[in-house]
Amino acid sequence: MLMREVRLDVIVRPTEIDVNAHVNNAKFVEYLEWGREEWYDRNGLEYETLKAMGATTVTVNVNVNYRSECRQGEVLTIVTRPGRLGRTSFAFDQQILKADGTVAIDAVITLVTIDPQTRKPRVVPEGLAKALTG
Amino acid sequence: MLMREVRLDVIVRPTEIDVNAHVNNAKFVEYLEWGREEWYDRNGLEYETLKAMGATTVTVNVNVNYRSECRQGEVLTIVTRPGRLGRTSFAFDQQILKADGTVAIDAVITLVTIDPQTRKPRVVPEGLAKALTG
Amino acid sequence: MLMREVRLDVIVRPTEIDVNAHVNNAKFVEYLEWGREEWYDRNGLEYETLKAMGATTVTVNVNVNYRSECRQGEVLTIVTRPGRLGRTSFAFDQQILKADGTVAIDAVITLVTIDPQTRKPRVVPEGLAKALTG
Amino acid sequence: MLMREVRLDVIVRPTEIDVNAHVNNAKFVEYLEWGREEWYDRNGLEYETLKAMGATTVTVNVNVNYRSECRQGEVLTIVTRPGRLGRTSFAFDQQILKADGTVAIDAVITLVTIDPQTRKPRVVPEGLAKALTG
Repeated sequence: MLMREVRLDVIVRPTEIDVNAHVNNAKFVEYLEWGREEWYDRNGLEYETLKAMGATTVTVNVNVNYRSECRQGEVLTIVTRPGRLGRTSFAFDQQILKADGTVAIDAVITLVTIDPQTRKPRVVPEGLAKALTG
Repeated sequence: MLMREVRLDVIVRPTEIDVNAHVNNAKFVEYLEWGREEWYDRNGLEYETLKAMGATTVTVNVNVNYRSECRQGEVLTIVTRPGRLGRTSFAFDQQILKADGTVAIDAVITLVTIDPQTRKPRVVPEGLAKALTG
Repeated sequence: MLMREVRLDVIVRPTEIDVNAHVNNAKFVEYLEWGREEWYDRNGLEYETLKAMGATTVTVNVNVNYRSECRQGEVLTIVTRPGRLGRTSFAFDQQILKADGTVAIDAVITLVTIDPQTRKPRVVPEGLAKALTG
Repeated sequence: MLMREVRLDVIVRPTEIDVNAHVNNAKFVEYLEWGREEWYDRNGLEYETLKAMGATTVTVNVNVNYRSECRQGEVLTIVTRPGRLGRTSFAFDQQILKADGTVAIDAVITLVTIDPQTRKPRVVPEGLAKALTG
């Protein structure tokens, strides 16, 4: 079953906060990656499956808005939805929500599909395009 | 002496690469933060100095283009230059260069200055604005 | 209610594996810290509570055996039990178990209680000693 | 040229300190790994070279004493020396020194050499044993 939107809950762990006692901006970029991985997994599009389709995905742009601080012990929900789909590239629209629904982070992550052999951009494989458009 | 552009060299360490044997996109966001910290330090604008001016800086947007892979042992140069200066916000234009001058990363990082007490945006303090405009 | 043994489940996330596709030895040290934090929380001995008792805990030794590799997506259980209790120091015996019960990690972590003002070792506060001895 | 002792200088970066404004105990374990990697590199014993000798090294125990706090901007020297050499296993004795020579960390790290194919322990290859005994 294809899923347009995938949600992943995480808890902010003690080694994930910085000297200001909140989650650092780089760590949020990791959380976003965890959310995208969950999206691929739930859509049956693991790394090896994509590779068998002759494609690897590479992140080419990360655009993240930081709206609200997050602290140790907070339960956060990482929401991942397909965004714009191009010929060789595509995007995910992601949010990180606090338990009360406040948006802590919103982000657009742009990826390109490459041929694992040549390392050149290639058309988004049909199996992935289908999942991205639901 | 004010410095418009600050350069910081780093070496990619073994625990900074991921399963694909290259620097992960979140780790590059950390490198960029190291570069900005170096900019503040070289301009005599440490955290405590800014606080004495009644200001703390908060990252509100990170926009990063990933152009070239970096691997363990590479010497990278993080270049940090002031960008757009607004009333309460400002930006840094940053690049990460490989040893041969190839651009691995370019990024615009937008920050806002807040009042440490009220946590509300405030005008960029003069001492900081001066350093940003050279 | 005091709890001698506390269990915390975590899932190995994509940014937590290294170039060898397994959890790196430093990341396991982080997982162990997450487990101890959970032990303090479940026993009502948060940082601020200990501080009100006039004590802060400082890690003085980490002794970790690495027995089995862990990979992305694995569910791991971090088991944390009080170990040796001395006058100013104490230990936790910790294990990280794989889903099939295999021991991936066992560790002894030794901490000392210090006075937050003087930063000198002090007797383990009664409230903490009680929780440690069940 | 074989080198019994290898020194590597690092600077504590802003994202490497934790909520207590000092280097966290897991991050020190990463620094120690950077020091060992430097030792292998300077002795011409890179990962691929060892593999060509039919061996991969695996960390089986980390025993770290934390003696002194380290803060952002500090220059630290990671000192790596060969320790005990057994039949299939060997150790490094490592220290992390502050700029004034104070020992922040001392550690013994035990590794075993395995056959990359069978993943079973094997005799430490001669080329490595020679470097370890100087």
